[in-house]
Amino acid sequence: MKLLALDTSSMTATVALLDEDKVIGEYTLNHRKSHSEKLMPMIEEIVRSCELTPKDIDVFAVSLGPGSFTGLRIGIATIRAMAQALDKPVVGVPTLEALAFNLFQSTGFVCPIIDAQRDLVYTGVFQWVKGQMVEVVPQQVLHIDELMDRLQKETEAVYFVGDAIDKFSLILKERLGAQFQVPPKKFLIPSAASVGEIAKIKFEKGLVGDIAPIYMRKSAAEVQYDEKMKGRA
Amino acid sequence: MKLLALDTSSMTATVALLDEDKVIGEYTLNHRKSHSEKLMPMIEEIVRSCELTPKDIDVFAVSLGPGSFTGLRIGIATIRAMAQALDKPVVGVPTLEALAFNLFQSTGFVCPIIDAQRDLVYTGVFQWVKGQMVEVVPQQVLHIDELMDRLQKETEAVYFVGDAIDKFSLILKERLGAQFQVPPKKFLIPSAASVGEIAKIKFEKGLVGDIAPIYMRKSAAEVQYDEKMKGRA
Repeated sequence: MKLLALDTSSMTATVALLDEDKVIGEYTLNHRKSHSEKLMPMIEEIVRSCELTPKDIDVFAVSLGPGSFTGLRIGIATIRAMAQALDKPVVGVPTLEALAFNLFQSTGFVCPIIDAQRDLVYTGVFQWVKGQMVEVVPQQVLHIDELMDRLQKETEAVYFVGDAIDKFSLILKERLGAQFQVPPKKFLIPSAASVGEIAKIKFEKGLVGDIAPIYMRKSAAEVQYDEKMKGRA
Repeated sequence: MKLLALDTSSMTATVALLDEDKVIGEYTLNHRKSHSEKLMPMIEEIVRSCELTPKDIDVFAVSLGPGSFTGLRIGIATIRAMAQALDKPVVGVPTLEALAFNLFQSTGFVCPIIDAQRDLVYTGVFQWVKGQMVEVVPQQVLHIDELMDRLQKETEAVYFVGDAIDKFSLILKERLGAQFQVPPKKFLIPSAASVGEIAKIKFEKGLVGDIAPIYMRKSAAEVQYDEKMKGRA
């Protein structure tokens, strides 16, 4: 069984190939957001380098968000197109879970934070217990102050991952003190191999087919449209 | 500061680009050992995709082994050639440390095992304490039975990484029981981003210049030569 996984929910574009026994390859670019230009060449590069063709892929997996609306649409459209063309199943993986997976079996709490604008973050809190990732605070959009309120009630160290760390680092340090921990940079960004590992588990459980994006909030255009409509009512 | 890191100590070929703030890119192929064919194209691919040229790289880093003698020679020769041609510093990273780094802040012990033939493993035991990796058992060549003797004295769970897990999985299970743990596949193989993260720390401490391979034991050819010479003495 060969599985192609990708994540384009943030500035990072990442593609991986996995089979039952191993990660066959992974290619990650965290350089400049240009998924529409780079994603297909990255997929072609890694598939060719592993001496495979798209027809050899049995399962397609994609990170569903939350994250950049445009990024998610590119990733999901690409996976859907390949899977439909080749008549193969698709598996969707929540981005926050894939980020937390980067810190396998970490002590303390793992807290992915993705920027949702206006001092909001897409977040959730996870804890690793005997190799299993347990959701301690459900995945949701929270005001950064509300997330801090919840974490301050705990004594565990909190390891943050995700693209909103820099933006909120002052408030995180001030509110959490020694609880606030940031892993080395390589663990902070999406990894398609993490997406793929979770997708393998979901595929084995038969959780296939549903790859609707997880937006968690409305896009700026939708908010504007709703406000305009309200004015007319 | 831009750093290029690579690891060719095993079947996996892996290349990464890092700067102060992030991992800019990583490309890993774990498909078939053909480092002599694939390594330079992989370096070219990732450098070009990040809109850089080799001249933009300030520091070169390489995994020093232990591992495949041929793999190590290819990796070290490549890094030395690029660094000398461009007159840039080089940093060497022990492969066992880079493998243990994959499991940042893991609970229990982290034990990389790399096959050294004849029931021997290149190994060491590490423990993460507040974001620092502490060496509990020094890096060395050990008979698998001797490693088991040492680990059985402990109560901690042991998370194994490295390419010798499959070969020794029966004895590991039998001797360690519930202590024996294997992380998901993505954490088991070398990652050039891990090599690069350790190299950044070493570079900041001024630990540059020494990239002699860490063989830990003689090659088969050297053993044969020694035995032949002994016969003559």
